[in-house]
Amino acid sequence: MDIMQSCIINNDKKILLIVIDGLGGLPINSKTELETALTPHLDKLASMSSLGLTTPVDIGITPGSGPAHLALFGYDPVQYQIGRGVLEAVGVGHDINPDDLCVRANFATIKNGIITDRRAGRIPTQKNQRLCDKLSSQIKKIDDVEIIIHPGKEHRFVIVFRGKDLSSNITESDPQKDDKPPVPVSPLKNDAIRSTEIVNKFIQTAAQIIEDEPQANYFLMRGFAHHPNLKPMSELYNIKPAVIATYPMYKGIAKLVGMDILDCSETWESEIETLAKNYSEYNFFYLHFKEVDMKGEDGDFSGKVKLIEKFDALLPDIQKLNFDVLAITSDHSTPAVLKGHSWHPNPFLLHSEYCRQDNINKFSEKSCAQGNLGNFPQTKVMQLLLANSLKLKKYGA
Amino acid sequence: MDIMQSCIINNDKKILLIVIDGLGGLPINSKTELETALTPHLDKLASMSSLGLTTPVDIGITPGSGPAHLALFGYDPVQYQIGRGVLEAVGVGHDINPDDLCVRANFATIKNGIITDRRAGRIPTQKNQRLCDKLSSQIKKIDDVEIIIHPGKEHRFVIVFRGKDLSSNITESDPQKDDKPPVPVSPLKNDAIRSTEIVNKFIQTAAQIIEDEPQANYFLMRGFAHHPNLKPMSELYNIKPAVIATYPMYKGIAKLVGMDILDCSETWESEIETLAKNYSEYNFFYLHFKEVDMKGEDGDFSGKVKLIEKFDALLPDIQKLNFDVLAITSDHSTPAVLKGHSWHPNPFLLHSEYCRQDNINKFSEKSCAQGNLGNFPQTKVMQLLLANSLKLKKYGA
Repeated sequence: MDIMQSCIINNDKKILLIVIDGLGGLPINSKTELETALTPHLDKLASMSSLGLTTPVDIGITPGSGPAHLALFGYDPVQYQIGRGVLEAVGVGHDINPDDLCVRANFATIKNGIITDRRAGRIPTQKNQRLCDKLSSQIKKIDDVEIIIHPGKEHRFVIVFRGKDLSSNITESDPQKDDKPPVPVSPLKNDAIRSTEIVNKFIQTAAQIIEDEPQANYFLMRGFAHHPNLKPMSELYNIKPAVIATYPMYKGIAKLVGMDILDCSETWESEIETLAKNYSEYNFFYLHFKEVDMKGEDGDFSGKVKLIEKFDALLPDIQKLNFDVLAITSDHSTPAVLKGHSWHPNPFLLHSEYCRQDNINKFSEKSCAQGNLGNFPQTKVMQLLLANSLKLKKYGA
Repeated sequence: MDIMQSCIINNDKKILLIVIDGLGGLPINSKTELETALTPHLDKLASMSSLGLTTPVDIGITPGSGPAHLALFGYDPVQYQIGRGVLEAVGVGHDINPDDLCVRANFATIKNGIITDRRAGRIPTQKNQRLCDKLSSQIKKIDDVEIIIHPGKEHRFVIVFRGKDLSSNITESDPQKDDKPPVPVSPLKNDAIRSTEIVNKFIQTAAQIIEDEPQANYFLMRGFAHHPNLKPMSELYNIKPAVIATYPMYKGIAKLVGMDILDCSETWESEIETLAKNYSEYNFFYLHFKEVDMKGEDGDFSGKVKLIEKFDALLPDIQKLNFDVLAITSDHSTPAVLKGHSWHPNPFLLHSEYCRQDNINKFSEKSCAQGNLGNFPQTKVMQLLLANSLKLKKYGA
């Protein structure tokens, strides 16, 4: 990182990093989702590109979205961690600031002081919204700390304690199992004594407000976390970066590393329009396509194949923009076979005037394993993109 | 390592790690031993597996058996070292415990206080055994320290000083060259003053016992070492591990990392029977086949080829057991051309339900270089095996 930073220079060249979330997979009938998909445009581009595989965290380690994206943006995901509360907060669209102590919360059912259902029967999202509105309208502040409440999906919501000198060194109130009493919140370090008092006052007040609800008459909290205070990408790399994504969590993570969030509606086409429209304003774009990962999570192999084909059909519209450096990869693999994230490395394609072309006419896990970039750490992707845009000068004489 | 440990979960899946000692080689007539061997079963398995190469310690570094195996079991062989004395002790079947100070010894010839032959003319093993018996029967203790003596091959033997608070910070008595006097043993640190006195008393006593021998009338010591106190694999990985091997050294190394040693006789067939018999009792097996390495050490290219073919013929009996994760690799390469260990990476084959199949119909150094696992550190093998057995949960959210 230090070497790279000492070599940074500025120029007008433009980089586009496309993340097809959960792209890599595993075979059914000897072909992965990406191998099964008909991808003429990707295959043609592959033949003029450098191919490789990237390892998000370490061999065999399955990353969450936080670590996987941090790595992709050049931040060591072992050294830097985005706490659960913050990830949830940015995931529901909370505009986080450094004074925010964020925590993930679940509505729960309590009976005679015992948690009978940690998820309150997975109440409908609409009911969740109603309950969060009720809490928000009745609790604005605890002492001098502002309270911000965001509903999530089903039983999940986010509480933000906004105030000076709050500490995240607080135990969780979630007993992790049903048929136990909620665990009292207590300080893990002395710096959290005041914060713990505020949180406990909040629990008392909030629990009274919902105590007459039939199911969601209590709530549990876990993952107290602060803004990770990462050095922004603009400072690290001397670039002007922007994110185009449809899901709040990815916009949120990008914002944590200092990217501008560009407005767009929910479709991939709209994301590409946004890219075209803002082309002149930034020299680094992170363009995120989410739904491929969701098909993987659902175990929907053919659905994932179809979405990869959909991306392929849209690729020429992106190529038209003539970015100086174009990378197509993923944050992590999500094989339909596993119905979840996996440890397998990400297919990685790099196209620029100065890449060593592999002349392999296929973009797949297998072809990427044959590529000249080899299998390399995901944290080095940014360096490679900067190099290909000639934004890194010679190191040493 | 810390990341991996934070992700460990327990399940019933079973892992088999097969080590064909010294498997990798170098070509004669453009084909290596493994490429020359007819291996239909290995080749078929390769076509359904992930292939790669593993580097035991570092590029260009030829490992001994100790570091090579430590790496394979996930212990950094630079950070953790098994001292020479301990390796010799476990190699002759000594059941080491934490109070043991082990040292490798050579019978030598001394004349007028000058070592004339550091190897005592490589006396026959039988004579060595007789001398060790003689020493053992006459020296049981020095002060409160128990003395245990094990004969090795030819002139080599092992001395174990068993007692509380002994230190290995002791100089060696071997002058390393003939025609020099033995070097007095002295403490390297203050904690070794008492240990040095005991060792010197032992030298005096033992030398008197054998002083009338015609050749082996003295002995030299080097490599004082203690049990390396490695965290056991059961604790590191939450697995129940066992070793099946025919040579004491490999059982010994496995025991140092906490594996149970399973009884078997000297044949490969018996090793596989032992594996089948104990299948239900453990969820990690290290199955070691030694003789391939010995053919390499002897420079016997065609002998090594034949033993690889023998392994291939036995492979179906192993496959029948249906391990969830099966890896076939080696600790280090032993090319017949070099008549010894070498620095070349190890061919590595991984078969599991969740591996990315390379569809390469050959198991060889060359085909492994084409595999999707790439060339990776041997210390990461365990992580990969755990991931493929779904024993590692997601890192971060």
